[in-house]
Amino acid sequence: MQDYKAILGDIHRDLSSKTNKGQVATYIPELAHIDKNKFGIHLKTIDGFEFGIGDCYTSFSIQSISKVLALSKAIALIGETVWQRVGVEPSGHPFNQLALLEVEKGIPRNPFINSGAIVIADILLSYLKNPKDDFLRYIRDLANDDSIGFNEDVALSEKITGFKNYAAANLLKSFNNLENAVEDVLDFYFYQCSIEMTCSQLNHTFFFLANKGNCLLNKSRLTKTQAKRINALMLSCGFYDEAGEFAFEVGLPGKSGVGGGIVALLPNHFVITTWAPGLNPKGNSLLGMQSLEQFTTKTKLSIF
Amino acid sequence: MQDYKAILGDIHRDLSSKTNKGQVATYIPELAHIDKNKFGIHLKTIDGFEFGIGDCYTSFSIQSISKVLALSKAIALIGETVWQRVGVEPSGHPFNQLALLEVEKGIPRNPFINSGAIVIADILLSYLKNPKDDFLRYIRDLANDDSIGFNEDVALSEKITGFKNYAAANLLKSFNNLENAVEDVLDFYFYQCSIEMTCSQLNHTFFFLANKGNCLLNKSRLTKTQAKRINALMLSCGFYDEAGEFAFEVGLPGKSGVGGGIVALLPNHFVITTWAPGLNPKGNSLLGMQSLEQFTTKTKLSIF
Amino acid sequence: MQDYKAILGDIHRDLSSKTNKGQVATYIPELAHIDKNKFGIHLKTIDGFEFGIGDCYTSFSIQSISKVLALSKAIALIGETVWQRVGVEPSGHPFNQLALLEVEKGIPRNPFINSGAIVIADILLSYLKNPKDDFLRYIRDLANDDSIGFNEDVALSEKITGFKNYAAANLLKSFNNLENAVEDVLDFYFYQCSIEMTCSQLNHTFFFLANKGNCLLNKSRLTKTQAKRINALMLSCGFYDEAGEFAFEVGLPGKSGVGGGIVALLPNHFVITTWAPGLNPKGNSLLGMQSLEQFTTKTKLSIF
Amino acid sequence: MQDYKAILGDIHRDLSSKTNKGQVATYIPELAHIDKNKFGIHLKTIDGFEFGIGDCYTSFSIQSISKVLALSKAIALIGETVWQRVGVEPSGHPFNQLALLEVEKGIPRNPFINSGAIVIADILLSYLKNPKDDFLRYIRDLANDDSIGFNEDVALSEKITGFKNYAAANLLKSFNNLENAVEDVLDFYFYQCSIEMTCSQLNHTFFFLANKGNCLLNKSRLTKTQAKRINALMLSCGFYDEAGEFAFEVGLPGKSGVGGGIVALLPNHFVITTWAPGLNPKGNSLLGMQSLEQFTTKTKLSIF
Repeated sequence: MQDYKAILGDIHRDLSSKTNKGQVATYIPELAHIDKNKFGIHLKTIDGFEFGIGDCYTSFSIQSISKVLALSKAIALIGETVWQRVGVEPSGHPFNQLALLEVEKGIPRNPFINSGAIVIADILLSYLKNPKDDFLRYIRDLANDDSIGFNEDVALSEKITGFKNYAAANLLKSFNNLENAVEDVLDFYFYQCSIEMTCSQLNHTFFFLANKGNCLLNKSRLTKTQAKRINALMLSCGFYDEAGEFAFEVGLPGKSGVGGGIVALLPNHFVITTWAPGLNPKGNSLLGMQSLEQFTTKTKLSIF
Repeated sequence: MQDYKAILGDIHRDLSSKTNKGQVATYIPELAHIDKNKFGIHLKTIDGFEFGIGDCYTSFSIQSISKVLALSKAIALIGETVWQRVGVEPSGHPFNQLALLEVEKGIPRNPFINSGAIVIADILLSYLKNPKDDFLRYIRDLANDDSIGFNEDVALSEKITGFKNYAAANLLKSFNNLENAVEDVLDFYFYQCSIEMTCSQLNHTFFFLANKGNCLLNKSRLTKTQAKRINALMLSCGFYDEAGEFAFEVGLPGKSGVGGGIVALLPNHFVITTWAPGLNPKGNSLLGMQSLEQFTTKTKLSIF
Repeated sequence: MQDYKAILGDIHRDLSSKTNKGQVATYIPELAHIDKNKFGIHLKTIDGFEFGIGDCYTSFSIQSISKVLALSKAIALIGETVWQRVGVEPSGHPFNQLALLEVEKGIPRNPFINSGAIVIADILLSYLKNPKDDFLRYIRDLANDDSIGFNEDVALSEKITGFKNYAAANLLKSFNNLENAVEDVLDFYFYQCSIEMTCSQLNHTFFFLANKGNCLLNKSRLTKTQAKRINALMLSCGFYDEAGEFAFEVGLPGKSGVGGGIVALLPNHFVITTWAPGLNPKGNSLLGMQSLEQFTTKTKLSIF
Repeated sequence: MQDYKAILGDIHRDLSSKTNKGQVATYIPELAHIDKNKFGIHLKTIDGFEFGIGDCYTSFSIQSISKVLALSKAIALIGETVWQRVGVEPSGHPFNQLALLEVEKGIPRNPFINSGAIVIADILLSYLKNPKDDFLRYIRDLANDDSIGFNEDVALSEKITGFKNYAAANLLKSFNNLENAVEDVLDFYFYQCSIEMTCSQLNHTFFFLANKGNCLLNKSRLTKTQAKRINALMLSCGFYDEAGEFAFEVGLPGKSGVGGGIVALLPNHFVITTWAPGLNPKGNSLLGMQSLEQFTTKTKLSIF
């Protein structure tokens, strides 16, 4: 076994000293005041090794990373039916998601662009009895950790300023690809995105996707095939228009959030999570991306 | 002078006998049940001749035709400042208005596509004391006719189903090109579109644009230059992606509405209005378009 | 009658003194060295008044202005059949003509964007016995002036560097919208664009479009309806993505060329031509546009 | 070890009996007459197992599969410099490659769309002394098989009809992203695409990408990192706008060609090749895709 502690220690030390730490996202007012020197990494392997460094026990807003969890719950609920309402192809575009949605008649390209995630939120709203509670319960069970929760201030902050998401949801509604009212779907969606976790908790939560669908407590959450497919989607679509770059440089399925978190995993081997709030121009955590590039380069571990 | 009565009589007779009368718009539920055999034409010249035929005294929903009136009021209120928030170029696209709005950072192409008209509605909302009352007053004064009014059922019908307009308004808001709340702007916008007039009333209302900016009562509503510019905009952008076709076949500035109305005018000469609820595939009144083609062909009158 | 001499004298004097004269086009190497202080205007009315000022007797490359003449010849040859292969709608886009051509399956939006003009060139190549000679003969006859000619150096310069036109022509070919070989069509097209005229000659050449289709020698070149339609197209599509702006500010049908020429006309009244090689950012002559704005503002003459 | 023979036998038998075998590509005339009942599969593992079934020893035109080999040669020649002229992101679009190329100023999205592959061909043309011979030599060495060759009739067939590729190449040239003449680059490109191989030969040729960059003869062709990156690119971009679907359903890096061939591989484990000329609506071999889906489902082998 490689000396993960030494490798992660080197990476954390090297990147902590960088002066360029990217820009903290400002479009969600509640997230704008986060200290961009925060930097944590957490690794957990299938065979039981676990190690964290830096700010890996500080909570942050997981934001878009929650889209993967919402998708996994939707698949657990209604299976492959999900794919009648959302695609599995990369969007290829930074700028014009709504354009694509118009051309493709209300079927979002994939569940990780905002319009796709809003469709998934609509599914959860239709199938969960108490959507917010049930979804939080699902996450806490995945992580085996009842301290995980929503941040209502963040949810509210997005609700007041998230006009682009309202635009997307209304467009979906105009194409009959939302069952519930726009307000209700977005209310749930903003809560989902406001979930807070530490690197360590995030790592535990995603463990099931590296572990053939079985979560920490060894309960089956998804079939092996379902887990495989979600991993494939993270690889293709997990980093917006930088997905190809991430596959190319890092070579792991993963997902980033505008709060500065990233989760990546090597199926049957490990989950690694990073948090550094400064983003690169494409909206992905700058130090997080660099951490993962260094990690897969040094360890020679990747799916390719 | 040409024998307009005979010419319009021939046109009305000829087109009334057509079996293909187009399709009544169904996306606004309240408009879906209109009889598509309705067909009226009304002509009024600058030198005082006036003649109507067919259903020219039956009210219909003017819908997008109201965008020209709203624009004229906005210009009367704040002048050329309007053009800081909306452009004067044709959109060239039937399908992806939102796409263009994203690429062009929230500045709608022109005031006659929906997103542009929503910006104009926002201006009226900011500058009118009692927006709905004041706007209706403005229209009644133009037409010298206090019987013109809103249709609240139609406004409500659009409010409940107009998701695409909500999408556009939220997108505008996300680009800081709406001052007022989305709900308020659209509430006004749907009322504005729900105005009902007969061909005769519509003709009187638009008379000022053929008359150097002076309305029926000979009061100045706009300067000559302002009227000229609105006419230019109707020519370039009045018929969605059929604007070039209309310029080419008819050769008059004009504006159509999904309720089946069309107004067209030859500056310093006449205003002509038509109403026939059946639309062609591009959303313009089928018999209305044909009436105007025949009229300019038979009279040899056009701006070109 | 207005004092056109005084008006044009004022305009020429005022604009000659401007320091910002725009940028000379550099993408056609042969045109890059033109003196941007050149500035001529020429007016001719239907009732016989004619007046020129500044460099109105110096030849320049008419470039895209030739597209109107090519279209008129194509219509003279095969009539309305032309519209089976090219549309009449504005393109609405500065940047992605090829994109639109792909989406619309090889039917160019209108005959004044490059791809549309290449289709027209293909028609002329198919129907003229000696295409270059016959087309030049047509133009000389319109102008009643045998001194008009091609500039072979300019044609060659475009042939060597016009990769974007080769791209467009090949794309048209892939959609079966070119009958002749790409090389042959572009050879003709580059010659057509290389025609040189003075403001005065250009004015005479376009006289037929202001004169119901009858040229200087009073021979019928087009029917009145055909002339009207070409004028409508110039209004809608004559100035690329600034067509709406030109209709709005000037209010005349017109066409510009990258060589700095502009022709505009008021049907049944006059033709006015300008030449000033410095272009604005949208590729239209800066002083030419300003001249025409001032002219229609001062004279109150426009189609609107 | 799994019983690959039995698994592949089952798959071949099952799919051979399907009545829907897709449509043979017709846009390259020379390929239009291929028998769509042809169907071969070939598997070779890193540890030495090798097995073929059906028409796995019949030659076919590898077409776009050659793009991976051309890229690998370009990387071998000039390393990471390649990425200054072509990107690594999926294009996300079936229809408007040229559109994207215009918007992105001549930098193709990735080396597997046609415009990207043309840039790679331009690089090979600049850096190889005898481009066609040297490239064929490179391939024969990879496969350790000197019987592999070009099909000049296919190359010529594309040369005469490949207008869309001429359009792309000219557009690249207009953005200064081709060093050599359009004709020369496409001449090489069409030869490259015309290479013919059997499933068995194709398998041997691609062995190095599953084998850390080392080819059959155990010579190093690429570094491990370079091989990893090409695999990542195949995963993201190997199947046009069906790349996400392939990652999702199959979960292996791979590349298809319009001749009906597909190559896919699991790094450090195996290479699998299929040939069945009938294509699905997205242009990928119908039976080939189904073979690989069944293979990864039955064996539970994938990168995810």
